[in-house]
Amino acid sequence: MKNLVELDAIYEPIQKELQELEQKLKAAIDVDVPILSLLLDYVLESSGKRIRPAITLFAGKLNHYDLDLLLPAASAIEFLHSGSLVHDDVVDNSTKRRGKLTVNSLWGDTNAVLLGDYLFGKAASLVIAIGSVRVTELFSRAVMNIIAGELRHKAAISNQQSAIKEARHNYYRWIGAKTACLFSVAAESGAILGQAPEEAIRALEDYGYNFGMAFQVVDDILDFIGDEAELGKPLGSDLSQGILTLPTILFLERYPEDGVVKEAMGSNDTVNVKLAVERVSQSVIIRGCFDIASDFCHRACQSLKNLPDYPSRSHLIDLAHYAVQRKK
Amino acid sequence: MKNLVELDAIYEPIQKELQELEQKLKAAIDVDVPILSLLLDYVLESSGKRIRPAITLFAGKLNHYDLDLLLPAASAIEFLHSGSLVHDDVVDNSTKRRGKLTVNSLWGDTNAVLLGDYLFGKAASLVIAIGSVRVTELFSRAVMNIIAGELRHKAAISNQQSAIKEARHNYYRWIGAKTACLFSVAAESGAILGQAPEEAIRALEDYGYNFGMAFQVVDDILDFIGDEAELGKPLGSDLSQGILTLPTILFLERYPEDGVVKEAMGSNDTVNVKLAVERVSQSVIIRGCFDIASDFCHRACQSLKNLPDYPSRSHLIDLAHYAVQRKK
Repeated sequence: MKNLVELDAIYEPIQKELQELEQKLKAAIDVDVPILSLLLDYVLESSGKRIRPAITLFAGKLNHYDLDLLLPAASAIEFLHSGSLVHDDVVDNSTKRRGKLTVNSLWGDTNAVLLGDYLFGKAASLVIAIGSVRVTELFSRAVMNIIAGELRHKAAISNQQSAIKEARHNYYRWIGAKTACLFSVAAESGAILGQAPEEAIRALEDYGYNFGMAFQVVDDILDFIGDEAELGKPLGSDLSQGILTLPTILFLERYPEDGVVKEAMGSNDTVNVKLAVERVSQSVIIRGCFDIASDFCHRACQSLKNLPDYPSRSHLIDLAHYAVQRKK
Repeated sequence: MKNLVELDAIYEPIQKELQELEQKLKAAIDVDVPILSLLLDYVLESSGKRIRPAITLFAGKLNHYDLDLLLPAASAIEFLHSGSLVHDDVVDNSTKRRGKLTVNSLWGDTNAVLLGDYLFGKAASLVIAIGSVRVTELFSRAVMNIIAGELRHKAAISNQQSAIKEARHNYYRWIGAKTACLFSVAAESGAILGQAPEEAIRALEDYGYNFGMAFQVVDDILDFIGDEAELGKPLGSDLSQGILTLPTILFLERYPEDGVVKEAMGSNDTVNVKLAVERVSQSVIIRGCFDIASDFCHRACQSLKNLPDYPSRSHLIDLAHYAVQRKK
């Protein structure tokens, strides 16, 4: 396995750009509606890892590096991502994220719905101002994709269509829409705005998609084996909400008769959930999940193999490896 | 007062276009996610009056009438409008709209939030595909405006900043953002896409804004004097939610000591609300509200007076008059 390079080291070549990104995000807070300004400040606080914008910036270095185009795109990606987290928390009735109380739990669903809408609008206005029809279309298709995927998944859960034999297929389809799609847009839009040749754009699109899949699989593993303090939320949160993610799916495929995990699905009983989390996390399953994440990571890196050996290619590879080996 | 021309008669010259619009809206339902298809079908059912798209179509006839550009814009306006209604109903916890149960009351907040997001995404993708940067920017600014206005208004209510002396100002600012803004975009985008001269575009923008103000004032009057069966919702719904609209504001300005209306504000007691609705609707205030609506309507029509006397100018004038005299 490749040695883990820390995020700070990976970001070193784009440090100045990431600072400009923070300023761009902060500038968005400067609106003359006090409540809006307060909410934006709360969600955009620089606690995120900014992985998606970093992908856009690195992907934009393939040919013609133009920050005036890349920074608005990178900011838009982050606004889109933040808006969808805010709406997700309303939809899932979540009270905590990254150790902080959610907008819906502090200011109510009303403000959270409107804030999410505003962030989408802000993303749209930034993308449009870039003036690239291709990138604008990419973003708007992505939004529809993400939402259609989420609706499909919610419906599948409530219809109990996700019998365990279809569960893995449904899971990949779901995380493909909710996570990989935005990673893919982040990479592809950077490549387009950097005037990369067509085959490089396709390679970056592939890279982003597989990176996003790996990233989400790891997120779902950490929900079982992570450190609660570092994650800023209780373990087993998907399980207790009755949402099937890869560790649970692999576990139930292997031990279809296991009662503990089945009982914890959608259960409010924290003892049940804790028991099930222990069961899954101590099983051989976790290794299997990491293998799948590594496989997606490998595919992401393979996508880049035909690109010229320019510096940011290795940074993109480091970033994908970081995602699989991170602890939070 | 101008004789009322019925909506069917006003729409006569754009009947074929409105049928194409319905087909365009229906085509949006054809997605491979059954729940999404069902929800879209439910909200886009042709029960609306389609006033906003009609404005776009008429406004597009000033110079170079190009349906390939106007129909996507008109559809986008309707999608944006529908999406914001769906989110409004989540935000206000409404159970009925136009005599039908709301999406949130039938399928829950989750699906309603996602459906609204999808409709915004759909609107964006249609507008972007038109390929006019100016129109695309117009739409994205409008979305941010509408949402910032809504957040400002909600905050003002909860901070009780809206003392009665500021109430009228706050009300105009609020309906300006929530209703007039979209009417203005409907008219302006039609004019831009119809390649109207710059002063005509400005005139149409003004027309749309004032038309929208008149339209919302009448909506708020009908919440007191309308027919419940025709409106499809109980009277006094704003009052019972504690929302100050023009009739209540004018009433409290004139009778600051009246206890009945004050008591009904934000009250769940239907008897209280009914008494207050009677009090307001039988007062001289209603006449005053209609005068204000007529004044906005007059300003809308005045905006068009310097335009050449082309046919759709008179249809736009008829449409504005219809809005003030409608019963539902």
